[in-house]
Amino acid sequence: MRNRLFLCCLLFIVCSTHLAAQSRATWIWYPGDFEIWLSNKMQTKRTERNAFIPPFWRLYSHQIVVNFSKQLNLPQPEEITVAVEGQYNVTIDGKYVQSDIRRITLPAGKHSINFQVYNQVSPPSIYVQGKTIYSDPTWTVEVVHNNSADNMPGKATNGYAGSWNFDGPEKLPSRYSLPTKEVKATSIKRNAQSVLVDFGQETIGFVQLKGLTGTGKLSLYFGESQEEALSVDSCEILDHYTINGNSTDFTASNARAFRFVNIVHEPGIQFADVSMLYEYLPLAQRGTFKSSDEQLNKIWDVSIRTLELNTREFFLDGIKRDHWVWSGDAVQSYLMNYYSFFDNESVKRTTWALRGAEPVESHINTILDYSLYWFTGIYDYYLYTGDEAFLKTIYPRMVTLMDFVLKRRNNNSMLEGLPGDWVFLDWAPMTKEGELSAEQLLFARSLETMALCASLMNDNEKATTYNQLAVDLKNKILETFWDPNQQAFIHSRKDGQVNRQVTRYANMFATMFGYLDSTKVNAVTKNVLMNDKVQKITTPYMRFYELAALAEIGQQAYVTKEIKDYWGGMLQEGATTFWEAYDPKEKGAARYAMYGRPFGKSLCHAWGASPLYLLGKYYLGVKPVQPGYANYVIEPNLGGLQWIEGKVPTPQGDIAVSVNTRQIKVNTVGGKGLLRFKSAKKPACKEGQLISKGKQTFEMALEAGKNYIVSYSLP
Amino acid sequence: MRNRLFLCCLLFIVCSTHLAAQSRATWIWYPGDFEIWLSNKMQTKRTERNAFIPPFWRLYSHQIVVNFSKQLNLPQPEEITVAVEGQYNVTIDGKYVQSDIRRITLPAGKHSINFQVYNQVSPPSIYVQGKTIYSDPTWTVEVVHNNSADNMPGKATNGYAGSWNFDGPEKLPSRYSLPTKEVKATSIKRNAQSVLVDFGQETIGFVQLKGLTGTGKLSLYFGESQEEALSVDSCEILDHYTINGNSTDFTASNARAFRFVNIVHEPGIQFADVSMLYEYLPLAQRGTFKSSDEQLNKIWDVSIRTLELNTREFFLDGIKRDHWVWSGDAVQSYLMNYYSFFDNESVKRTTWALRGAEPVESHINTILDYSLYWFTGIYDYYLYTGDEAFLKTIYPRMVTLMDFVLKRRNNNSMLEGLPGDWVFLDWAPMTKEGELSAEQLLFARSLETMALCASLMNDNEKATTYNQLAVDLKNKILETFWDPNQQAFIHSRKDGQVNRQVTRYANMFATMFGYLDSTKVNAVTKNVLMNDKVQKITTPYMRFYELAALAEIGQQAYVTKEIKDYWGGMLQEGATTFWEAYDPKEKGAARYAMYGRPFGKSLCHAWGASPLYLLGKYYLGVKPVQPGYANYVIEPNLGGLQWIEGKVPTPQGDIAVSVNTRQIKVNTVGGKGLLRFKSAKKPACKEGQLISKGKQTFEMALEAGKNYIVSYSLP
Repeated sequence: MRNRLFLCCLLFIVCSTHLAAQSRATWIWYPGDFEIWLSNKMQTKRTERNAFIPPFWRLYSHQIVVNFSKQLNLPQPEEITVAVEGQYNVTIDGKYVQSDIRRITLPAGKHSINFQVYNQVSPPSIYVQGKTIYSDPTWTVEVVHNNSADNMPGKATNGYAGSWNFDGPEKLPSRYSLPTKEVKATSIKRNAQSVLVDFGQETIGFVQLKGLTGTGKLSLYFGESQEEALSVDSCEILDHYTINGNSTDFTASNARAFRFVNIVHEPGIQFADVSMLYEYLPLAQRGTFKSSDEQLNKIWDVSIRTLELNTREFFLDGIKRDHWVWSGDAVQSYLMNYYSFFDNESVKRTTWALRGAEPVESHINTILDYSLYWFTGIYDYYLYTGDEAFLKTIYPRMVTLMDFVLKRRNNNSMLEGLPGDWVFLDWAPMTKEGELSAEQLLFARSLETMALCASLMNDNEKATTYNQLAVDLKNKILETFWDPNQQAFIHSRKDGQVNRQVTRYANMFATMFGYLDSTKVNAVTKNVLMNDKVQKITTPYMRFYELAALAEIGQQAYVTKEIKDYWGGMLQEGATTFWEAYDPKEKGAARYAMYGRPFGKSLCHAWGASPLYLLGKYYLGVKPVQPGYANYVIEPNLGGLQWIEGKVPTPQGDIAVSVNTRQIKVNTVGGKGLLRFKSAKKPACKEGQLISKGKQTFEMALEAGKNYIVSYSLP
Repeated sequence: MRNRLFLCCLLFIVCSTHLAAQSRATWIWYPGDFEIWLSNKMQTKRTERNAFIPPFWRLYSHQIVVNFSKQLNLPQPEEITVAVEGQYNVTIDGKYVQSDIRRITLPAGKHSINFQVYNQVSPPSIYVQGKTIYSDPTWTVEVVHNNSADNMPGKATNGYAGSWNFDGPEKLPSRYSLPTKEVKATSIKRNAQSVLVDFGQETIGFVQLKGLTGTGKLSLYFGESQEEALSVDSCEILDHYTINGNSTDFTASNARAFRFVNIVHEPGIQFADVSMLYEYLPLAQRGTFKSSDEQLNKIWDVSIRTLELNTREFFLDGIKRDHWVWSGDAVQSYLMNYYSFFDNESVKRTTWALRGAEPVESHINTILDYSLYWFTGIYDYYLYTGDEAFLKTIYPRMVTLMDFVLKRRNNNSMLEGLPGDWVFLDWAPMTKEGELSAEQLLFARSLETMALCASLMNDNEKATTYNQLAVDLKNKILETFWDPNQQAFIHSRKDGQVNRQVTRYANMFATMFGYLDSTKVNAVTKNVLMNDKVQKITTPYMRFYELAALAEIGQQAYVTKEIKDYWGGMLQEGATTFWEAYDPKEKGAARYAMYGRPFGKSLCHAWGASPLYLLGKYYLGVKPVQPGYANYVIEPNLGGLQWIEGKVPTPQGDIAVSVNTRQIKVNTVGGKGLLRFKSAKKPACKEGQLISKGKQTFEMALEAGKNYIVSYSLP
């Protein structure tokens, strides 16, 4: 006991010294610039066989001249040391410092200090370290004089500094790379001039050949499946090397995604062993889930592996192919992340990278819906994290993107695809011409996001405008697309002619966004969501929203079955991570074909990991009501299982939930919670105050940091 | 004779082989990108003593993903070799080339080829070399998909490729640097721990210390004057080095402008000799001028040295200080260039660099007048060179800058300084608030330039609009600023209140632009230009326009006196190049002070070289009437001198003019010329047809490639 106390004290001392003298300083840059620059690096890593394929949308550059400034009020002179990425000058009260600008003594009193940094190659960045002065996100960052008229969309935005975790002078942002660790192969099969290596599961990183000798050509053919690796003519990813005899341990120069690698080499080449350097973003797994169903548990485990592999410099769609950042895919990853890693930084990085710099010249990824998801992703981020600082920094870029969107409304104040726009929505047969009801719903949610953020920024005029636009649009959506006869949203309208086909998209979005009264919810449930005659959704991408909407209306038992069928089906096919698309009818190598290529399909695709979100939000039932879980509900649902248990991360810690047919256990953290559940009989709990809400529904307020055990009986 | 003929044939063979197989290929890039990138490099070379000082206006970046394409129609397959700056892919008819993309065999028939290149660090560029296919400015260059609405100012422009003279696969644009050659010092004075070196005249380059031994600190203090070099505390430019004993011949790492260098070193350091590597843009001197006045000849020689030093990567204002590109300074250099080097490439490079990329966020150099001069510079360029290809490439960026300007008009459709704008006009006491008459005249000329270019682009709608705007504005200028009582243009109007002060600016611009009828020309001459009571112009910058306007109305004799006084005065002060400013009343070191700094003044300033323009255009009298000298006039004027002679470059060759009080000799080149002169008696010429125009004025049509000798008598 004594030892332990001593250790705590010691830790405290170390930490506080650390904070005061070292750790608070971090590298800072113009908001979004590091992310834009890093995303350019990552997004230009895509190859298809030998061809280099950069994104087909505009890539932006970082600002090349940036001012970093801070107002000082020092009781006594203070020395700072400075590290900078770029050429720079320093002014104190507007006067150039002529002495050594790597180590500067600042005078006592009120002063302003400014670093002006130029860097064409990577983002201008600084690291300043003194006793009380240190670079951190509170510094003001501005691009050089920019006297735009206010109505210019190109007006660059000035604000607080961007930063991440570059917390030492030697941790240059421009040198950033993901860490690696060695992983052994699970099987190595040697043939005459080739070696087939299996790593046992999907992975990503650098192949290593130990004890390499000889000279000649060596090719690596990668496969997410064995079939792909062996198909030297059709595998998606390959690398050729010329070995000059100098290597002993060879490390491939490109990180690739694969489970299998087929190493084809000239006779002169030999190597003793094969392994790989797994390249990864360090992530703490905070969310957990276990249940009475072993298959479901395996689905959750494979889901988190799938999401982990795709959570890298940015949230990827899949690790094999694009290395591009897609907005529609990313916002789903954000939601899964809130029930697994709760890694805010990855969400922020991805949001910056997707948005790019000014001016907005096209939709994000050129896709109409992907601009709209970008806004809803920010809405979700704020709800889950309560991170107002981020909203304040990104708000100017939200305004300019929304300006772009608003300018592209048609005469009905609705959005439809204009020349150059891609209207995606889903890979499924449907018309994408004219006003799609689903796009208008995403637009309404985007306007609500803008109204919310404008309020937080005290930009009341804009808040009123966005709010009114959202209200008007929602009314217009009901008028235009709600079909009173079919009692459902219809698909679209073009040139004033409505298309009365009912598709699932608008119906599930309206349900998820809480836009419907209970009569309409019931109608949509019956007429659309639970109606097999309505065209089915086949992509895991839209299955995400479909199953979420079903769970939203209490159809967990149905969702359980769907998850076990669809994701369980992939497991039976041998999946070690979840796929971009899955059709149980396809067998053999045909399972891997997509986009007209035999191995075009991604077998590790982030949107395949949606059970993380569904099980966390709708089974463990933990969801924020106010930003950052200041208020939250826990609404557990067994979904037909015998028991479930797990943890859901929040900014205040992890909420633990454990439910079986007779008992609900909850361990709370900070924030005000509300437990809501159904019970056939009157439930009991020692700790809290149970309130009946009728229809077998009970609620109980939850205090912070307590353990609750409720006895109930499953209806 | 026989040998010479043989040599000609040989040259012809060499040239034609060269053209067919090698020389037509050149590196190409997205228009303006190399220039933007190079100007960023150059403009960030400014230091003031130890402080690094980048421009205070926005620096743009090059596009980082660019498509280069060409439509092919090959009678037989053809192999091309490829050099690229960046990562790239190649498609033929939209299909990726999977084989070696450094050497590609193109199939016979009609095909399209596309190179997609990514480069964050320097402009994406390609060099393609085949038998009939080669990269050149006719290739189409586009930034990646850019589905902007047409009304977006940020819309990037697609068009024909940018290029310069990078005519071999190894001549990478990103490796561009000016050549150097060694120049010896004219005097070296050694003191105990310092050495004062004089290079005899203003120069720019890298100091070299031959046979350097020892270790320790070494500082170079540069001076355009000896006083500056010796003033280690106040000289503008200095460099510190630490010598580690490894050097034998030391070359300074920064090119600096100086005549004197004061080398201060620690005792352990010794060196045998001092020289420098003169850094220069290779230029052919085509314009010449000689006269009966030796001082004037010396002024011309020092002027061309001044302009040559300032004609570098871009036209600089001065070589010592800024290394920034200033629009107002540059357009004067362009005009001088047409009477000296006729180096089109330098004008084009500078025009691209000044303009930058999209979107326009502020005036060029943040200065209202400097945006307007940018347009007039293009007007002049087209008039002198006839280079339509350039106009077509730059036109989209002209439109977006003019859009920016037009949006900033006030309710009277005139321009005045808005917040963030700098209204410069001249370093002189005057109000710069409200509508300045001079700014409106530059605006009118800019609109005329736009109308001209729109016509050339067959953009008839815009041509009509710009033309109407120009006509309306010129009418409004006369209504508002022509004072019938004072018979002159007044200075300005603010909030509807006219300021009746007469300044020279609007009066000289209106005269130069040919906007005045003869009555008003006479009035302006008498009441303003030749009126000492009107506030005098003291900067060489505005003296340029003042003396041009005076020459425009035939006051060459007065101009001669002014040139001899002002520029002759600088020569008497020991100038080896002309200065940023000169006041004959200032003596000693005070002559070198400016901007509140003892050596702030630039002693090699491009705008000091204006006699090149004045003597070429208004004495030799050669000026284009139609673009590219398709039509031109020669209107010689002795300006009180006994004789003048010289050459004026044109796109068709150099026109030679020689004039004394009795004879005018002209050697013409291509184009239709007109000789115009005054003679007291009836002149005579064997070759041409003399026509009397009354008032002692005679004209004679000049044919291409002839020598004319006219006998006349000076009125």
